[in-house]
Amino acid sequence: MNDSSSGAIGVFDSGVGGLTAVKELHRLMPNENIVYLGDTARVPYGTKSKETIRKYALQDIEFLKKYNVKMYIVACGTVSAVMTTSPVFDGEKLYTGVLLPAVQAACAATKNKRIGVIATSATVKSGSYGKAIRAIIPDAKVVGKACPMFVPLVENGYTSKDCTVTRLIAEEYLEVMKKEQVDTLILGCTHYPLLSDIIADIMGENVKLISSGAEAAKYAQAVLTENNLLSDRKENGWLKLFCTDSAEMFSENVETFLGKSTNYTVESCMIDSAE
Amino acid sequence: MNDSSSGAIGVFDSGVGGLTAVKELHRLMPNENIVYLGDTARVPYGTKSKETIRKYALQDIEFLKKYNVKMYIVACGTVSAVMTTSPVFDGEKLYTGVLLPAVQAACAATKNKRIGVIATSATVKSGSYGKAIRAIIPDAKVVGKACPMFVPLVENGYTSKDCTVTRLIAEEYLEVMKKEQVDTLILGCTHYPLLSDIIADIMGENVKLISSGAEAAKYAQAVLTENNLLSDRKENGWLKLFCTDSAEMFSENVETFLGKSTNYTVESCMIDSAE
Repeated sequence: MNDSSSGAIGVFDSGVGGLTAVKELHRLMPNENIVYLGDTARVPYGTKSKETIRKYALQDIEFLKKYNVKMYIVACGTVSAVMTTSPVFDGEKLYTGVLLPAVQAACAATKNKRIGVIATSATVKSGSYGKAIRAIIPDAKVVGKACPMFVPLVENGYTSKDCTVTRLIAEEYLEVMKKEQVDTLILGCTHYPLLSDIIADIMGENVKLISSGAEAAKYAQAVLTENNLLSDRKENGWLKLFCTDSAEMFSENVETFLGKSTNYTVESCMIDSAE
Repeated sequence: MNDSSSGAIGVFDSGVGGLTAVKELHRLMPNENIVYLGDTARVPYGTKSKETIRKYALQDIEFLKKYNVKMYIVACGTVSAVMTTSPVFDGEKLYTGVLLPAVQAACAATKNKRIGVIATSATVKSGSYGKAIRAIIPDAKVVGKACPMFVPLVENGYTSKDCTVTRLIAEEYLEVMKKEQVDTLILGCTHYPLLSDIIADIMGENVKLISSGAEAAKYAQAVLTENNLLSDRKENGWLKLFCTDSAEMFSENVETFLGKSTNYTVESCMIDSAE
């Protein structure tokens, strides 16, 4: 067993969305320690420019470095897509974004080589998903669609399957996916799995949905196993959640993502130097 | 004529919403210079905590101080409502938020003393509108309602009168206003006037809508006149717009607010010290 195996898994996102990855991490590896940062003071990232997103992401990583992190997960679809060159983690540490794990899962799932990607504007603009998919399946048809209303809809609780507003907007966004007959659809933003009931209903049962957060968690498990870095802890690991805005406001949202049965602590922190 | 009359009017908001105030300022006083800051790298403010909003606002004001500003306008409904104590402007300078001008207009307009306020969550939580209204009409009934979906709807172009999604959400938000029979409704967020067609249609012709941005502009004109600070410039003033994220992305939105006929420059700037 490697000495570093006692370290934590460090995860960050612009807000609460990355908790879909945390939920899956905790389900797969309940005895791992997890430290999570949600940059709620500056959420959302997905409507912002490449330069601003990069600057914020580097500050998020700097914060996580203070913990004994053995593997980093960039649980923000936008950062994963925009920072195509490797971000500045500690040299020897492992990391993954949500993009590659989702792309690998989608390429394994597709039969007709027609893959859809729904994500934030910044992610779709980056073209990163198309590039990564075609590196595996050169003649794949990749259909990208920005869904900027999905994050506010999720954050304001418009997530139930019978919600007319969300259904109308989702039908508008997904029209191109049906027209292009994709058989696999990547949910390229970690908020979107909360709308998967509606999305699945519109796309029909023959279309496979890929949750980028959940795929990143599975990928992290494989990487940690391969590198002999899984914890040998017998009891459950801790789950420390940090946010850059009010902890109270953040906590209200956490339960929607993690469910009631998970134990965690929530703390507010400061990640920029401006006062 | 006072020496300071050649100075500019300094306006800021979290994003593009405050341009509803700029539009009215320019219409009322076309020969005034106006400098505007939209903090698009950290928009929105309205879902964030009081402490974070205050910190961001102080940085915005610091930026505007670099210009020869003769009067400041806090064209952000959230900042105006949350920073109830006077923010740190240059001691001798004039300023106004959007709250008091809107409250004065609403108190002058109401006949049944039932006033509605729709705004961001932070503004409604602050209770500032109720306090300011009751200082003028002690037995006024004030009905507040947070409308967190309105900003994303406006920013994503769901503004046409026949937009079903916006209408459904607006009907949900405004139900309490109809039930409480308000005769005056303050649009307490500077984005909301772009939805005034739908809001007016739902509320009916007997309800007076008050645009907080436009009222702040009228108020500024009165204050400048009173203090003998109106410009004696013969030609049109300049309109310098700054944003903290990409100028290109900001520009796409500006026209929606200002219309095609206004001349302005757009530039990106940095307002925090974190790199």
